[in-house]
Amino acid sequence: MAGKAQSTRELVLETALRQFREKGYAATTMRGIASEAGLSAGNAYYYFSGKDQLVQELYVRIQKEHRELAAPRLRQGAPLSENLATVLHTGLDVMTPYHGLGSSMLAPALADRDSISPFSPESAAPRDQAVELMAEAVAASRGTPGGVLGERLPQLLWLAYLGVTLHWVLDPSDGQHRSRMLVDGLAPLLARAIGLAKLPVGRGLAADAVALLDRMTARSNAIGDTNNADDPPEDPRGS
Amino acid sequence: MAGKAQSTRELVLETALRQFREKGYAATTMRGIASEAGLSAGNAYYYFSGKDQLVQELYVRIQKEHRELAAPRLRQGAPLSENLATVLHTGLDVMTPYHGLGSSMLAPALADRDSISPFSPESAAPRDQAVELMAEAVAASRGTPGGVLGERLPQLLWLAYLGVTLHWVLDPSDGQHRSRMLVDGLAPLLARAIGLAKLPVGRGLAADAVALLDRMTARSNAIGDTNNADDPPEDPRGS
Repeated sequence: MAGKAQSTRELVLETALRQFREKGYAATTMRGIASEAGLSAGNAYYYFSGKDQLVQELYVRIQKEHRELAAPRLRQGAPLSENLATVLHTGLDVMTPYHGLGSSMLAPALADRDSISPFSPESAAPRDQAVELMAEAVAASRGTPGGVLGERLPQLLWLAYLGVTLHWVLDPSDGQHRSRMLVDGLAPLLARAIGLAKLPVGRGLAADAVALLDRMTARSNAIGDTNNADDPPEDPRGS
Repeated sequence: MAGKAQSTRELVLETALRQFREKGYAATTMRGIASEAGLSAGNAYYYFSGKDQLVQELYVRIQKEHRELAAPRLRQGAPLSENLATVLHTGLDVMTPYHGLGSSMLAPALADRDSISPFSPESAAPRDQAVELMAEAVAASRGTPGGVLGERLPQLLWLAYLGVTLHWVLDPSDGQHRSRMLVDGLAPLLARAIGLAKLPVGRGLAADAVALLDRMTARSNAIGDTNNADDPPEDPRGS
């Protein structure tokens, strides 16, 4: 993209992020963004198809910054707890400037149907990159499990990262220090729980956890087609 | 409360729930509720101090129905997985009529500061009753752990129930059948993970999980007063 176009695109994005912060996600419009940026609505739409795409751009940017910050800090041969804490803390670092945006985006972002959900098809690129960063953290660490749990560990850790992010978005404490406390406690706990999965006593549990993850992330909405335990719950009291 | 007052109170509550469903939580006003119910605003305020208190009333009612439905179905001496599934499924049963309300209440209900959050001081009564129902499910089950984990197990299971509720609120599947699938998978997984905590290999992990829960649920906002690992994260990149 040429320099002028690139800087106009940046201007639209920066203006949008400011309006999301100030007015909330729902009350911000493409027309209002264009107007504040001194552009016609058509010009703004030339760069972004709508508010959803602006949020996607934010996800891509955050993910890129996260990787740039985290990857050089992963320590080869370190315990998983250490590298996991590094990835989770640096994730919060790069999101910190956007803390004010979070709560107004939360309900639409969480709703499964919405394109700005972290689970949506539209969010696939930044999601895949986030899972890939988790895979790098696992690969750098010593003593991580093999087998089916090893394969799916990056995805499981990404879900843990989403949980931390949910806590952080809603965290009213100064500088979100309670979310930092959560990361400091959760990283060693998760690493130890994952360590248990290497023992005979934990292996079956880990396999079942992965199987549940697979069932829950299957995109199909049809009842009973991937899991025969999933009977229609229309009248659960009658069962 | 006399019959007439009781039925007026019911009318205000029913009208409020309908407006929450139809307009969303944010757009509903006490004035609008009173008007639709054919009352003066002053009359409506006589029964409820505001929208928040109407939501609290809903929590209390759901919790009461949940207990009435679940308690007789708990089976003495059954495995924890079974009694846990009973409590989680009956919780979804009683919430089902209010599924449409959930997403509009989600952002304010999740925010820690808001009185309609499940963690707020105002929600203490229904929260305590929900934890008490979990304690009944644990007490009815065989082979549950003692010690510090046993003591805190009801609170941990209540957090799992909140997680299931979050999934359910956002669940777009027919009849929220994916949330039923989650319960069917999660109840045996949690029960087995809790079983591991009785073994030497899991005991330390369980104790650390409980300690983290205690740190995270401490109400203090001051940095470092309950946990010396909780350093101010103002400049985590500098560390």
